[in-house]
Amino acid sequence: MKEEYGKTGFHKSCFFMPKKNIYYGMILFFRTFLWPNGSNFMKSFSIEQIKLMDRFTRTHFINTLSGFKSVSLIGTINKSGQTNLAIFSNLVHIGADPALIGFINRPTEAAPHTIAYLQETEFYTVNHINQEIYTRAHQTSAKYPEHISEFEAVGLTRLFRPGISAPFVEESNIQYLLKLEEVIPIKLNGTFLVVGSLQQAFIQEDVMDEDGYLSIEKANSLCSLGINGYYETTFLDKLPYAKP
Amino acid sequence: MKEEYGKTGFHKSCFFMPKKNIYYGMILFFRTFLWPNGSNFMKSFSIEQIKLMDRFTRTHFINTLSGFKSVSLIGTINKSGQTNLAIFSNLVHIGADPALIGFINRPTEAAPHTIAYLQETEFYTVNHINQEIYTRAHQTSAKYPEHISEFEAVGLTRLFRPGISAPFVEESNIQYLLKLEEVIPIKLNGTFLVVGSLQQAFIQEDVMDEDGYLSIEKANSLCSLGINGYYETTFLDKLPYAKP
Repeated sequence: MKEEYGKTGFHKSCFFMPKKNIYYGMILFFRTFLWPNGSNFMKSFSIEQIKLMDRFTRTHFINTLSGFKSVSLIGTINKSGQTNLAIFSNLVHIGADPALIGFINRPTEAAPHTIAYLQETEFYTVNHINQEIYTRAHQTSAKYPEHISEFEAVGLTRLFRPGISAPFVEESNIQYLLKLEEVIPIKLNGTFLVVGSLQQAFIQEDVMDEDGYLSIEKANSLCSLGINGYYETTFLDKLPYAKP
Repeated sequence: MKEEYGKTGFHKSCFFMPKKNIYYGMILFFRTFLWPNGSNFMKSFSIEQIKLMDRFTRTHFINTLSGFKSVSLIGTINKSGQTNLAIFSNLVHIGADPALIGFINRPTEAAPHTIAYLQETEFYTVNHINQEIYTRAHQTSAKYPEHISEFEAVGLTRLFRPGISAPFVEESNIQYLLKLEEVIPIKLNGTFLVVGSLQQAFIQEDVMDEDGYLSIEKANSLCSLGINGYYETTFLDKLPYAKP
């Protein structure tokens, strides 16, 4: 009898509560009296509060706020044959026809090599990061002197393909070649949107579906969060083209 | 005896194969004779081949190639009080100080409302998409006439907060307010990089770590792939700041 009371007794005496579940009532109570603006148990951070955070806390906060990112390694070469490899997580799809992919490059004082090299030789490679290589990929973000190639420093294999000057990362299962189209300065903070056009793609065999969709999780491609978080993904759903 | 032969007999007779595993030998064979450039069992797609794909196949291919994306709902309002809600997956972190977040807006003929509204009223909200709402969020990509607000059309709750004109999505567990800073045209294909500065963030209570890192997977935030794929994520690792 006690069990039955526990399950059904209380909400019968509270006429304003939905009958299905007593937790609805509790949520209603909290939402009404403690979070009256319906703000869903949320903490508010104004930009003034965020500015008061110490530099690293603020960096983590803002870098993670914009969500999961497509982290990749960009391979470049300069005219003298010096190669560079650097991790970039701020890549963005710009258009399918023509096929354009962009990335945000920090101010050249902070991140000089990739942008200088690709401006010199026009072509650069983008290489997905998988579980086997993410620690080595992350290590490319260390500030090595220019004469040291990150390929050797972190232990990734430089792969040169016939007719292509820029180096690929052999350990990557999805690689593509871009040709520099435009470097667009973002004056607000001295960064650049570097836009490249797709020239060629190299895709692990079993990854492409019939409709052209690349199930990149099958190639173990990771996504990142903020400046140092790495995530695996699990396919949830593929939805049809939406109509009103 | 037959079993032993099957397991170990063959590679003993092949001096050039590693002894540990016969599959190494098979891989060595294929790599040497069939994929001599060490290209890791990969299919090559030149841009000429990609251009020959039908429009939808090409769209899927190129949209998925650039990797996982931070899909969110952008909420706007115009001066007459008409609200708009649209799904955007091409968001990009631009800088932490000042805190700038951008997104790619398609040409205004194709995607007119969000950009027009935020240019009119300057402020717009970005709302993470979680498992509860991703089908409704995806539905906002349907082309509704301007007088229909996607909030009602897809069944998401418009949340107005004191002193903020732009509408939030109540069902979202991570929401933030941006102020329009600059609309940068990308002349190559008629798209725009819309850059906003962070004004305020609303974060589900248990999501922020001590170092400011938002473990957005705890708020069930999803990432997307291409134009229609949705993924859950699993935390893999957080790596320290890299030094040479």
